[in-house]
Amino acid sequence: MTLRIGLIGAGGMGRAHVERIETELAGGRVVAVADVNLDAARAVAEPLGAVAYATGAELIADPDVDAVLIATFGKVHAPDVLAAIEAGKYVLCEKPLVTTTEDALRVLDAEQRAGKKLVTVGYMRRFDAGYQQLRAALVAGEHGYATLVHCRHRNPSVPENYTTRNMIDDTASHEIDICRYLLGEEITRVRVEAPRATSHRFAHLQDPLVLVAYTESGVRIDDEVNVNLQWGYSIECELVMETGTIRLGDQEQVHVRDLAGNRNPICRSHIDRFHDAFNAEVQQWIRAVERDDHTGSSAWDGYAAVAVVEAALASLDAGGVEVAVQLIPKPAFYA
Amino acid sequence: MTLRIGLIGAGGMGRAHVERIETELAGGRVVAVADVNLDAARAVAEPLGAVAYATGAELIADPDVDAVLIATFGKVHAPDVLAAIEAGKYVLCEKPLVTTTEDALRVLDAEQRAGKKLVTVGYMRRFDAGYQQLRAALVAGEHGYATLVHCRHRNPSVPENYTTRNMIDDTASHEIDICRYLLGEEITRVRVEAPRATSHRFAHLQDPLVLVAYTESGVRIDDEVNVNLQWGYSIECELVMETGTIRLGDQEQVHVRDLAGNRNPICRSHIDRFHDAFNAEVQQWIRAVERDDHTGSSAWDGYAAVAVVEAALASLDAGGVEVAVQLIPKPAFYA
Amino acid sequence: MTLRIGLIGAGGMGRAHVERIETELAGGRVVAVADVNLDAARAVAEPLGAVAYATGAELIADPDVDAVLIATFGKVHAPDVLAAIEAGKYVLCEKPLVTTTEDALRVLDAEQRAGKKLVTVGYMRRFDAGYQQLRAALVAGEHGYATLVHCRHRNPSVPENYTTRNMIDDTASHEIDICRYLLGEEITRVRVEAPRATSHRFAHLQDPLVLVAYTESGVRIDDEVNVNLQWGYSIECELVMETGTIRLGDQEQVHVRDLAGNRNPICRSHIDRFHDAFNAEVQQWIRAVERDDHTGSSAWDGYAAVAVVEAALASLDAGGVEVAVQLIPKPAFYA
Amino acid sequence: MTLRIGLIGAGGMGRAHVERIETELAGGRVVAVADVNLDAARAVAEPLGAVAYATGAELIADPDVDAVLIATFGKVHAPDVLAAIEAGKYVLCEKPLVTTTEDALRVLDAEQRAGKKLVTVGYMRRFDAGYQQLRAALVAGEHGYATLVHCRHRNPSVPENYTTRNMIDDTASHEIDICRYLLGEEITRVRVEAPRATSHRFAHLQDPLVLVAYTESGVRIDDEVNVNLQWGYSIECELVMETGTIRLGDQEQVHVRDLAGNRNPICRSHIDRFHDAFNAEVQQWIRAVERDDHTGSSAWDGYAAVAVVEAALASLDAGGVEVAVQLIPKPAFYA
Repeated sequence: MTLRIGLIGAGGMGRAHVERIETELAGGRVVAVADVNLDAARAVAEPLGAVAYATGAELIADPDVDAVLIATFGKVHAPDVLAAIEAGKYVLCEKPLVTTTEDALRVLDAEQRAGKKLVTVGYMRRFDAGYQQLRAALVAGEHGYATLVHCRHRNPSVPENYTTRNMIDDTASHEIDICRYLLGEEITRVRVEAPRATSHRFAHLQDPLVLVAYTESGVRIDDEVNVNLQWGYSIECELVMETGTIRLGDQEQVHVRDLAGNRNPICRSHIDRFHDAFNAEVQQWIRAVERDDHTGSSAWDGYAAVAVVEAALASLDAGGVEVAVQLIPKPAFYA
Repeated sequence: MTLRIGLIGAGGMGRAHVERIETELAGGRVVAVADVNLDAARAVAEPLGAVAYATGAELIADPDVDAVLIATFGKVHAPDVLAAIEAGKYVLCEKPLVTTTEDALRVLDAEQRAGKKLVTVGYMRRFDAGYQQLRAALVAGEHGYATLVHCRHRNPSVPENYTTRNMIDDTASHEIDICRYLLGEEITRVRVEAPRATSHRFAHLQDPLVLVAYTESGVRIDDEVNVNLQWGYSIECELVMETGTIRLGDQEQVHVRDLAGNRNPICRSHIDRFHDAFNAEVQQWIRAVERDDHTGSSAWDGYAAVAVVEAALASLDAGGVEVAVQLIPKPAFYA
Repeated sequence: MTLRIGLIGAGGMGRAHVERIETELAGGRVVAVADVNLDAARAVAEPLGAVAYATGAELIADPDVDAVLIATFGKVHAPDVLAAIEAGKYVLCEKPLVTTTEDALRVLDAEQRAGKKLVTVGYMRRFDAGYQQLRAALVAGEHGYATLVHCRHRNPSVPENYTTRNMIDDTASHEIDICRYLLGEEITRVRVEAPRATSHRFAHLQDPLVLVAYTESGVRIDDEVNVNLQWGYSIECELVMETGTIRLGDQEQVHVRDLAGNRNPICRSHIDRFHDAFNAEVQQWIRAVERDDHTGSSAWDGYAAVAVVEAALASLDAGGVEVAVQLIPKPAFYA
Repeated sequence: MTLRIGLIGAGGMGRAHVERIETELAGGRVVAVADVNLDAARAVAEPLGAVAYATGAELIADPDVDAVLIATFGKVHAPDVLAAIEAGKYVLCEKPLVTTTEDALRVLDAEQRAGKKLVTVGYMRRFDAGYQQLRAALVAGEHGYATLVHCRHRNPSVPENYTTRNMIDDTASHEIDICRYLLGEEITRVRVEAPRATSHRFAHLQDPLVLVAYTESGVRIDDEVNVNLQWGYSIECELVMETGTIRLGDQEQVHVRDLAGNRNPICRSHIDRFHDAFNAEVQQWIRAVERDDHTGSSAWDGYAAVAVVEAALASLDAGGVEVAVQLIPKPAFYA
């Protein structure tokens, strides 16, 4: 059986998902594409023999659509996510789930009323082989428990319309989700610091930032967000355990010795770095939907990430003071 | 459209191919399974709703089979490969293509008569990301040309029925193919040396061996074959270029610091090491067949590998003298 | 000419200095040893044919002593340092110079009255080849300026009498000095955080700690102090520059592949890690004294380190609030 | 007590030894310098207040010279080594000891008549920390015994007067000595192969070469000698043991991430790479002579190296055939 997927959002991320579903993954195909720009929807839909819609609502209502993939901007996710839940259809929604805790709470309510976890948030790192080995090491407990996590999110550069707030709500959002996942704990307080800025940035940007967060058990997370380093897309994550440290490897495929040294090339973009993780995410989602099952980050995860982002932005606005993260009690439904 | 694949050989390798086609790859499904042990064929076929046959000939003749995947022992490949060619069906045949140059020449003849390259030999390393980057570096020529290649083929252990000859025809066979691929040249002479043997082996085995080969332009290849090293499956390949060396990376996914040192774990089997390469190989073959196109190692590559293996075994029998590799002139068909 | 050195403090560090001066370094010998435990002084002095004293004052007054090496506890350094300055003799004083800013200011005053820099503080890392390359990279400016520094100070374990305050005044003291040296800037504010504690510690200890400091230009330094990690003595320092990061290497002398992975062993103590740096420090001090010149950390550096330590301890006592570092204006004498 | 050293040979290597004895090492000073170019001898001697001689014979006869350091060309070593032995003075002779087995046998005879081991050959790698750890690992036997050794001797470039024979008698000579030292066995047969040559060489040079040698127990050694690689001085040595491999580390002091990759710089010359080993060699020789003791490579080692070099050059002349190494039975004196 082939899962009939409806895509909402015909931009770059949406087209990348179509590409992987059609050429690299098994078990699914894209049967409908919606975009506020109907021409864009048609441009993606036509080569696939898929239907084009101007709204997510129409696409969700289409009985030929088994499941929904949302790849629009975060600010407009909420109505489509809620509509998909109402329709009882599984939905893979790109991160962030929504951009306010109010909207996130609406999603949690709707999903609980629907009676099953229909929403997966597209935090693809959970499907990366390296992060999965980190998670396995934490679960195995061979090195005791974690006391600290050091994260680095380094980008070659960002465009002019990327804002200081995006360093938190877009970029650090990944580390917020993955640290919660790795540690199996909520983040309770957070602080954002602004060190000396690099000269390789647009003047409006405060770059780098350091986000410092603490979890329920006191694990301290720091995340260096450095988005104009010029040289590569370099994601680091080191778990400091009681009797050892475990970090993501250097993603080395070949190793060179030449005038530049003893070296391995560094990739330039998240597309290269997380190609396999994106594929695994969508593949496992297709498989899970077939089994009427949930996979990946849940709506609760999406809510918690938004809540931490809100606290972090409040800290940034207040000059770096520590801000408590406000979470509702976790419903048993999400246990 | 879905490619309807017939599998010949229901052993471990065949079942692994079924598993990947059914759960990890797009565009194909297994519609028939043949095995001399018909019960084994049925055990694999039934859950798939596929037909079971006792012979490859019947399977190849089945009009519902679009393409053939051969995963039997090398010694019995020849008749099925020839039959597939006669039937005009694409065939992905596990390595080695055949076990004698005589049989290989028969395949070359048949394929040329058929008028198109139907045969792909399952040397999966050509689809490994690391080897592909080595190949890209050679083609780019940024470091000049290669003068030497150092290969290591290290296994934790081998079972008692694995023979000294298997160190060449089964194990080193991979380096023979991949070095020909990387360098784009034929191997012209070869020698097999027997250093001090490890005590961690069955008494009948001469382990390790070192195969030394030269290509047409004089590139010197050495391949350390060491199959009872106890500690891991570790494949190395270093190209020594004029102005730099390039080698496969350490396949590090996580990096640990603890009492055992500053380290990354090493995988234990070729299944883990080349999981992605096997998938890419079969996926690209499915895509190529759909386009009526060829991919991967050709019948000529299979023939050349067998010829080098024959020379290497002659060297081994003769105590390590250098033996010339005898190849027919390469038909224009394979240029 | 051979420099005649008087050693004050016949404990482990003092004896290690004697050992290196007598067997590994050129240009100096130990002619006098003082210790409040006169027997201990004699035990070190006799095999050398050196004189033993019960007080530093007597040793400093001995006209056969050209220069003084102080290896007593930090709390008792002040009188001997001041006496050496009064006597116009060069003094290499183990870190910390003194333990209060009051005492440090007395040393600064005395030295300025003496009219030349006589005091070297034993921060040996400044003589480590790796740190020197970091310094060279910063000075060269090839990667722009630094925005962040990540330090790790990890120890296998500490004895029961080691206190939480020692994590700052003894352990982090090294990073405080070396970061000031690398960046060529003063630290202006500091904060000490207490994450989840490891279970591998004596109950009275808060371990690990994280010290966060900012310099005049806004460079953010973090220092993970983790002193019961069980597995090794592991010092890390990473400079995050505008267009690259530069960190201390892994101090790999041999690299092993075996069942434990692809690894290099990690040393167990600061004695092994900084053996060469200690030797270089004392050797260059001997050479400098011969030339009537100063080398290494100055009394000002010793003062600044104590001031940062005081602020950090105040932060620790106050639950992690940020504390400003109070420094007097830097006298031109130390420019 | 200070060892009074006489230096024969006022060229670059001799001056480097003077520099280290005078400024980096303890226990010795240079009191006499001899060179066929008396002006060159004087230029080195005068600043030291040392005596200058035009011949080694005069220097050796000087009663103020306790021990002799020979740093002339290998071809003229023999008379001075023999004279030093006759005079009963310890001699540290740069490698090679001599350039013919005939001369080496004369040295062995003379030394045995003298009744003690007076000759140390300057193979400094035996004093390198990395090689010493390899040796320790072999002795400890934790990974069983060695079956293979892979060596690489890579240079950025060589001058026009460097010949193909120098690739063996000058360059590979180091691996010949160090492998004998590591394995504790003699080399019994050897072969030199000439792969495709690099274009970055003077036309008269056959570069790279590969030397393949076997020891008494059958350990296979290969040594890639590649002297115009353009990019760095890179020495590798990997012991393939029964249950693990151990190799020299990457000599990383700092690690950089930037546009060129994730890398550590590679040193450019043997002076940088083996600075510490040269110092340790001369320091330990000074200490040993003070104790009337021997250290480092012996005259027997010097003889064995010359014998292997002779066999290797014969193989090179004969197009790569394997040549047996002819050694006299080892006198009990050298056991």
